[in-house]
Amino acid sequence: MIVDKLYETVEEFGPVCLGLDTALDYLPEHLKREEISDGEKVFRFNMRIIDATADVVACYKVQIAYYEALGLDGLSAYAKTVQYIRQKGKLVIADVKRGDIADTAKMYAKAHYSGSFESDFMTLNPYMGLDTIEPFRPYIEEKEKGLFVLVKTSNKGSRDFQMLDLKEENKLYQYVGEKINQLAIETAGQYGYGSVGAVVGCTNLGEAVNAREIMKNTFFLVPGYGAQGGTAKDVATLFVQKNGCVVNSSRGILLAYRKQENGWINFEKHARDAAILMRDDILNEL
Amino acid sequence: MIVDKLYETVEEFGPVCLGLDTALDYLPEHLKREEISDGEKVFRFNMRIIDATADVVACYKVQIAYYEALGLDGLSAYAKTVQYIRQKGKLVIADVKRGDIADTAKMYAKAHYSGSFESDFMTLNPYMGLDTIEPFRPYIEEKEKGLFVLVKTSNKGSRDFQMLDLKEENKLYQYVGEKINQLAIETAGQYGYGSVGAVVGCTNLGEAVNAREIMKNTFFLVPGYGAQGGTAKDVATLFVQKNGCVVNSSRGILLAYRKQENGWINFEKHARDAAILMRDDILNEL
Repeated sequence: MIVDKLYETVEEFGPVCLGLDTALDYLPEHLKREEISDGEKVFRFNMRIIDATADVVACYKVQIAYYEALGLDGLSAYAKTVQYIRQKGKLVIADVKRGDIADTAKMYAKAHYSGSFESDFMTLNPYMGLDTIEPFRPYIEEKEKGLFVLVKTSNKGSRDFQMLDLKEENKLYQYVGEKINQLAIETAGQYGYGSVGAVVGCTNLGEAVNAREIMKNTFFLVPGYGAQGGTAKDVATLFVQKNGCVVNSSRGILLAYRKQENGWINFEKHARDAAILMRDDILNEL
Repeated sequence: MIVDKLYETVEEFGPVCLGLDTALDYLPEHLKREEISDGEKVFRFNMRIIDATADVVACYKVQIAYYEALGLDGLSAYAKTVQYIRQKGKLVIADVKRGDIADTAKMYAKAHYSGSFESDFMTLNPYMGLDTIEPFRPYIEEKEKGLFVLVKTSNKGSRDFQMLDLKEENKLYQYVGEKINQLAIETAGQYGYGSVGAVVGCTNLGEAVNAREIMKNTFFLVPGYGAQGGTAKDVATLFVQKNGCVVNSSRGILLAYRKQENGWINFEKHARDAAILMRDDILNEL
């Protein structure tokens, strides 16, 4: 089960998930001026960030929207980025938030669990129902692949629907969380967590803690740390065991160089320093 | 407002939305044997289908998953397909079912409302909340673009979450539907429908009719006709005005050739015949 590898990776490298939501305007000016395609610029920036952080983060999450916005050239950079991460022996989460009827879901599984976009995990949106998750099961059970399903997200709008009160006392995200935890139990590895994980933001701590109570077998991918307001103390309450979460940071790490004078010269070093700071910040609370 | 153009298109060509969910194995054997890439095969099949149906369908819906499964070559075929549809002066819906935090949503808007993947409409998943829809508004208000937001889908699993009873009497899909209808009112064109539309399947008619009662200003994209069980009579009850829906069919049209002896020789003609049959089937009930 891929979740065991993730668990062990967190044990070895700490809980930081570095989000490569690499917008072109995140790049230092000297990289933007190179005579190569925009996608290639993004990929080269990513490579240097990955080289500088591979021994201080657990895994990488690549947000495909930033690449899709650059068309085929961007998606080529996306493919090269996920391939590069896997070549370095690191785990990668395809942050694609797909969710569709079974025949279509099969195509998404093929797209992101094999071929040039192959990742270890992908994110899914549960709105269309549990039958949209089923087509991923054979990959989870037989091919060392995993999922993170949206349960409680970190944005303000997560209150609009996820926080609705259901007739049977609980809220929508709690109900979804129960179902996902059932899938986690069914796909559990040796450490008690399942290869079907969940996205649970830490911006509203009460809800996140509540999600953890409901989802004891579920590995969490946690957005919302840092710029969005979540603290290491908040995050620490979600771990249960020491290695039950990865905590995402994107801009806080990718743009750390902008806080330093002439930081652009060694932008990857500042990313590394920021990742170490975040790792230790969280580990100190565990 | 793009919805006005869609309304007029339905008036002129009828309500069929042809879904180009083109799996490689839908192609006749002689096309599969050509010495070109798989993506190029799919694109050439699509071109012939589009040429044969442009005067008998309202619009096309391109399901990106089928192209993503072929990697960059498939996404190149996706780009060429949406470009070809627009060059023919037809409307195209990018069936991508995205939904993400605002910064990411901006990237998806850029990806599918401009550049090589440019479409007229895209589909969105509402689970993450209303702030994930906001970044699309400037394109809707200023750039003749539109949305179809998932409200009640056509798959069995749509019962899992969309049909949950909320404390305040209604069901989740009804609550989501009310919010989407509000956005439809805010983006309404001259015929009373908004450029924020909804996906409402016709496989469970009672729920679809109920959605229509709640969403009188919302243009519907209707899956579930034909193979999935929805009939022309079912669909007809969802129109309100004659032109308030487009009804999707994919395999029923793309694979019509397989029901004819030697149908592969003129596969596009059989697609055309199937589209006409579907169009007239529905128009007869209005």
